[in-house]
Amino acid sequence: MRLSRYFLPVLKETPAEAQIASHRLMLRAGMIKQAGAGIYSWLPLGYRVLKKIERIVHEEQQRAGHHPVLMPTLQTAELWRESGRYDAYGPEMLRIRDRHDRDMLYGPTNEEMITDIFRSHVASYKDLPLTLYHIQWKFRDEVRPRFGVMRGREFLMKDGYNFDLTKEDALHAYNRHLVSYLRTYERMGLQAIPMRADSGPIGGDDTHEFLVLAETGESEVFYDSEITDLRFGEREIDYDDRAQCEAVMAEFTSRYARTDETHDEALFAEVPEARRRSARGIEVGQIFYFGTKYSEPMGATVQGPDGKPVPVHMGSHGIGVSRLVGALIEANHDDKGIVWPEGVTPFHVGLVNLKTGDGDADAACQKIYDQLTACGLEVLYDDRDERAGAKFATMDLIGLPWRVTVGPRGLKNGVVELTSRRTGDSEEIAPDALTDRLCEIYAPHHAHVGRPMPEPMGKRSFHTWI
Amino acid sequence: MRLSRYFLPVLKETPAEAQIASHRLMLRAGMIKQAGAGIYSWLPLGYRVLKKIERIVHEEQQRAGHHPVLMPTLQTAELWRESGRYDAYGPEMLRIRDRHDRDMLYGPTNEEMITDIFRSHVASYKDLPLTLYHIQWKFRDEVRPRFGVMRGREFLMKDGYNFDLTKEDALHAYNRHLVSYLRTYERMGLQAIPMRADSGPIGGDDTHEFLVLAETGESEVFYDSEITDLRFGEREIDYDDRAQCEAVMAEFTSRYARTDETHDEALFAEVPEARRRSARGIEVGQIFYFGTKYSEPMGATVQGPDGKPVPVHMGSHGIGVSRLVGALIEANHDDKGIVWPEGVTPFHVGLVNLKTGDGDADAACQKIYDQLTACGLEVLYDDRDERAGAKFATMDLIGLPWRVTVGPRGLKNGVVELTSRRTGDSEEIAPDALTDRLCEIYAPHHAHVGRPMPEPMGKRSFHTWI
Repeated sequence: MRLSRYFLPVLKETPAEAQIASHRLMLRAGMIKQAGAGIYSWLPLGYRVLKKIERIVHEEQQRAGHHPVLMPTLQTAELWRESGRYDAYGPEMLRIRDRHDRDMLYGPTNEEMITDIFRSHVASYKDLPLTLYHIQWKFRDEVRPRFGVMRGREFLMKDGYNFDLTKEDALHAYNRHLVSYLRTYERMGLQAIPMRADSGPIGGDDTHEFLVLAETGESEVFYDSEITDLRFGEREIDYDDRAQCEAVMAEFTSRYARTDETHDEALFAEVPEARRRSARGIEVGQIFYFGTKYSEPMGATVQGPDGKPVPVHMGSHGIGVSRLVGALIEANHDDKGIVWPEGVTPFHVGLVNLKTGDGDADAACQKIYDQLTACGLEVLYDDRDERAGAKFATMDLIGLPWRVTVGPRGLKNGVVELTSRRTGDSEEIAPDALTDRLCEIYAPHHAHVGRPMPEPMGKRSFHTWI
Repeated sequence: MRLSRYFLPVLKETPAEAQIASHRLMLRAGMIKQAGAGIYSWLPLGYRVLKKIERIVHEEQQRAGHHPVLMPTLQTAELWRESGRYDAYGPEMLRIRDRHDRDMLYGPTNEEMITDIFRSHVASYKDLPLTLYHIQWKFRDEVRPRFGVMRGREFLMKDGYNFDLTKEDALHAYNRHLVSYLRTYERMGLQAIPMRADSGPIGGDDTHEFLVLAETGESEVFYDSEITDLRFGEREIDYDDRAQCEAVMAEFTSRYARTDETHDEALFAEVPEARRRSARGIEVGQIFYFGTKYSEPMGATVQGPDGKPVPVHMGSHGIGVSRLVGALIEANHDDKGIVWPEGVTPFHVGLVNLKTGDGDADAACQKIYDQLTACGLEVLYDDRDERAGAKFATMDLIGLPWRVTVGPRGLKNGVVELTSRRTGDSEEIAPDALTDRLCEIYAPHHAHVGRPMPEPMGKRSFHTWI
C-alpha cells in the first residue's frame, strides 16, 4: 500500500480524553475514531489489526474442531425469559422495542440463542460432542465506558458454546478450550495467564479468566511467579486426546493464580514468599463450565444411549477480540508509539523512501515493494514528499515491526537499511537479500508469506485475507 | 470436512412459513435458522457462503482502490439530526434509548457517520479522491419482513462512500463503482443488470440499481433484451482511467432498463417491440451520486487548490451481502435443491463413500480427500453410515457443484465417478486424475486452489479464509 493513497489520519496532539496508552495510541495512529460513548469506528489501520486477530481466533477455533456460525446482534426478549435472565440481567442489557412493540435486546452474550439452535436441531447423543462459536458484535451498556476499545459498549467478541452428553465430556471441552486459547494468545505474541475467577451472570462453578499483566489492567491479580515462565510453544496437540488436554490444563492451572474476586489469602500464603506476586491484569478471555444451567430450563435434551432424554452439559468460552487490540498495545508500546508483534501487525514492513522524487531511490523502492509484495509480504510504502524525520515518526507511531529505509547514499554502496522497531537496531543489507530475510522472519507467523502470490495484484495492491 | 463431525441440520420437511424457493432451501439445507421476525442465525453451511460472498466483495472493492473500515452498528441520533434525517427517516429506523436516556439508533445506512469521519480527518483537496467502505450489519424495521434473508430486518450490507473535489470526479467514482460491481456479481456467477432507479431516502439525482432477473423478484422491471447479452468478462480495467470506466458505464447503461419507479412508457416504446421485455427482478445493489447533500449541512469541506473551503461531492454504493445468498439461490436451483456457482459454493467438492466401512472404499476416499485438500480444494466428505440414496439427496439439496462418488465396484475398475450438479452428467475418472481436473475447474474462481496448502492441517481440516 502506498501511503500517498492510504487513509491514515495520524494525529499530532495527544487526545485529552484518552487516559491510557492504548487509547491514546489508537487515536494518534489513526486506528479508530469515537462514534459515541464507548462506540468506535475502525479506520483502515485499526481494521487490519482487528482482522488479523479475528483470523487467528478463527484458525485456532477450527483447529480445535469447533464450527463457525453467525448469530444476529439483536435477540428476542422471549428467549431470555425462558432462562430467567431477562429480568436478572440488569441495566447493562440494552433493551429495545421494535415498531410492533415487541421487546428485544442487543445481545450481550448468546447462551440462550445457541441453546435454542441446539434444541431445534440436535436430537441424539450420537451428534455429540458439538461446539459452535461465532465472532460477532455485542453490546453492554456500561455506565461509564472508558479506556477506548478496552471497555467499550459495542465490542467484538468470539463466543463459543460446547454441548456434551456428560459432565466429563464437557470438562474435556473446557480443557480443549483452555489449550486452544493458550495457542491463540501466543500466536498474537501475548502472554495471557489463566486464573481462577468468578462466573458472574453467566453462572457455573468452573471458570478461568485469561489475563494479560499490565499496569493499566482493571483487575487485581495474585499469582505464583513460576506461572509466568510457562509457554505453550510449538508442541503438537491432538484435541481429541483427553489426557493430553488435561495435562496442559494441569500444567497451566496448578499454581496459584487468582483474580481478586476469588483470591484466598490463606491459600496464597502457602506459596513461597519469594514467588508471591500481586499485579494488575487485563482480561482478554474467559471459559466457563455451567452444566445444565441453560439446557434444563430451555429443554435442550438429547436421547441418551438408553433412549431416555438427557439435558446436555454446556460451557461457554469467550475471547475479547476488539479488546485485544487495546491489550496488545498496552503490552507492546514505548514512548514513540506502538510496537506490534509480528503475528498481528497491520503491515509486515514499512518502506521509507528518504528522497521521494530521486530517480534511483524511487526505482529501488518500487523494486523492493514489488519483490516483497510478490512473496505475500504486506508493505506500507511511504512515498510521500516529506522530511525523513516525519516519515520515521509516523512509522514509529504506527509500530510496524520492521522498517526498510532507502536513500541515495546507501544505494551508492548497494545497501538499504533494515531496522527493528522493537530494539531499534539497524543493519545494512543488499536490496535483493531483503525478501529472504523478511520471509524468514514472517513465515512462522503468516502461512501465506514466502509463497508466490496467486494472481497479479494490478495497480492497486490488495490482500485477499482482509 | 467430514460430514460425521459437521453440523449440517438438513430438514426433511419443507417449512410451512417459507414462501419462496431460496427461503425454503436455506432452511432445508441447514444454512439458517430464524431467530426472530426477519432475523436469522447463520449455521455453518450458510456462514461459509456468506463469507465467500463477503470475500469477493472485499477483493473487488480493494482492487478498485477503496479502503475498508468498520463502523459500529449503533449510531447517535445527534449525527442524524445534523443531516435532518433523524425525523425524516420514518418507522423503518430502529430507535433506541440507552441507560442514560440518550437517543440512539441501529444504523440502516451510514452517510452521516462516514461524513463525520471524513470531516474530522481530511482537510485538503490533496487527500482526495477517497473512497471508504465497510461490510457491516444493518437494521431496517420492515413492517412485514418476509422471504427469509431476502427481506430481513437485520441484514449484512457492503456500503461504500466516495469523497471527491468536483462533480466530475464524483461521477468517475460512480462509474468506477459500476464497473467493480459488474465484476463482483459476475465472479459470483450472477448476472445483475444496472437499471435506472429512484433514489429514495438516500437522495440525489443519479442512481442505478443492480437487478437479478427472477420470478420471485419484488421489483417489476422493463428492459431492452439486448442488455442480457452483455458480459463484463475477462477484460482488464484500470480503475484510474476515466475514459475506460465511462465506456463500460455507457455500454451497460445506454439501453433501456428501468425499475417500475422510473419506468417511462413513451421512452420504452422507442425500443423495437421484439426486444421489449418486462420481468421481475431482485435488487442486489445500488449506486448513488448525491453531490453535496450531506457534506453541506454537515460541514464536510476541504481546502481547494485556491485555498477556499469547498464542500465535497459524495456518493454511496451498496451491495446486499446477506440478500445475495437468497438471490443466488433464486437464480440457481432445481427441484432437488440448490445448484451453487463455483465462485460461492460452500465446499468445492462433495465426496460420497458408497460403502462406509468397506476397507477399500474408505482408503480410497481418505486418499482422495487428502489429495484434494492438499491442493486447497474444500471437500465435504460424507463418511456417514447411510444409504447411497440419502447421501445423494443431501448432496443434491446442499448443491455442491461437483460430486465424487466412490464405490467398491468402480474401484475394481480403477475409477470413481465425477458428477456435475448442474447438468447431472457423470464421467468415470481415475482417482489420481481427480485433483488436476478439479483444480482446472476451480482455479479461475479461487486463487488458492491448485497451490499447495501452506501448513499441515492436523486432524481437523480448516480453511484459513473463513
